[in-house]
Amino acid sequence: MSFSASVLTLYPEMFPGALGLSLAGRALEAGTWSLEAVQIRDFATDRHRTVDDTPAGGGAGMVMRADVLARAIDHAAPPSDPRPRLLMSPRGRPLTQARVRELAAGPGAVLLCGRFEGIDQRLIEARQLEEVSIGDYILSGGEPAALVLLDAIVRLLPGVMGNELSGEEESFEGGLLEHPHYTRPQEFEGRTIPEVLTSGNHAKIAAWRRAEAEKLTRERRPDLLSGN
Amino acid sequence: MSFSASVLTLYPEMFPGALGLSLAGRALEAGTWSLEAVQIRDFATDRHRTVDDTPAGGGAGMVMRADVLARAIDHAAPPSDPRPRLLMSPRGRPLTQARVRELAAGPGAVLLCGRFEGIDQRLIEARQLEEVSIGDYILSGGEPAALVLLDAIVRLLPGVMGNELSGEEESFEGGLLEHPHYTRPQEFEGRTIPEVLTSGNHAKIAAWRRAEAEKLTRERRPDLLSGN
Repeated sequence: MSFSASVLTLYPEMFPGALGLSLAGRALEAGTWSLEAVQIRDFATDRHRTVDDTPAGGGAGMVMRADVLARAIDHAAPPSDPRPRLLMSPRGRPLTQARVRELAAGPGAVLLCGRFEGIDQRLIEARQLEEVSIGDYILSGGEPAALVLLDAIVRLLPGVMGNELSGEEESFEGGLLEHPHYTRPQEFEGRTIPEVLTSGNHAKIAAWRRAEAEKLTRERRPDLLSGN
Repeated sequence: MSFSASVLTLYPEMFPGALGLSLAGRALEAGTWSLEAVQIRDFATDRHRTVDDTPAGGGAGMVMRADVLARAIDHAAPPSDPRPRLLMSPRGRPLTQARVRELAAGPGAVLLCGRFEGIDQRLIEARQLEEVSIGDYILSGGEPAALVLLDAIVRLLPGVMGNELSGEEESFEGGLLEHPHYTRPQEFEGRTIPEVLTSGNHAKIAAWRRAEAEKLTRERRPDLLSGN
């Protein structure tokens, strides 16, 4: 059964975008996953196709309406649909590779992309949306975040990566940042490849890589080591 | 002077992608920023246009060559170019809204998108690349990360947001996650808007929002409160 993604957005023309090319695009063509982009505006009921209104209590910006979004979600994923319903939001729990792996092992995902100041809290509660943040910065909307989340998921689907990557040796998979990489040419602008890597001694190479990964993680991401 | 972005990639057709629509797309048309996508493969020198080779010391995957990437970078940004040179990489320092603001205040950015297992470490050192991570998960390449970083930057450029958002009241800007939002209708599936928000008492509304933001941050992101 292929992984099924539904993206609810005011900009369906942003999809598949980068996901229509390279690894993800080939997997999309091969039917390894499917992607449906749903125009939220189609679920407005007035003739101006209004999806937002001013915030209760005042303040800047506009808020997306619970009733319009509920109709869009229920259309894309009726209550019997087993896929998790995700809201891309900087208020969400930070995305981790572990959560990406879980999602990739499931039937798919419904991704709601917010715009404007935010979306009505009652919709989040009534549809039990899982708020997901891809990082501590602000985007113009949830769409670039949805592209990132789907890219991370799709590369883990069976058959997508082929032999390109081991999947085991990568950053985070071992709880450490990745060691430095080198390839030909042997000399580049006076800089040579570290001798150990051309020694042919596999045990020494593995030890060097492990030490470099630990050093880099200590320098840049001590939070990963302390289990924060 | 407009913000100038150069993206070095094996998939230039991924750009502008989502950045050609909505806020970022209008700003691109208006000349508020410019985007050049450079095909790294154009800087290979063999007739197969090879950009990668096997990792020194063995292991899975392929490594992007320092010499090819150096020619691409030096073409897009000669040494006199004042723009920061960024490498989108899960090994990088986590992107923050503060760094986004700094970049948006500068002349632009050169973004190198890695693919495969990684890129030759000597290139990172020789061209003093700043490694930037958008989060603790693995993508198929740097391109979706570049789309995210540029989206975050462009919305902060002068004139791009208009009155759509205050920029001051958002998540992270005050070190807290954002309070919940509500808008019409007054009742949605039996759920009403919290009374305080329709009280007209601005001081009470501000206090309620602050308390909700603090509660949400404590629950989901205590790391933001402890200054980690």
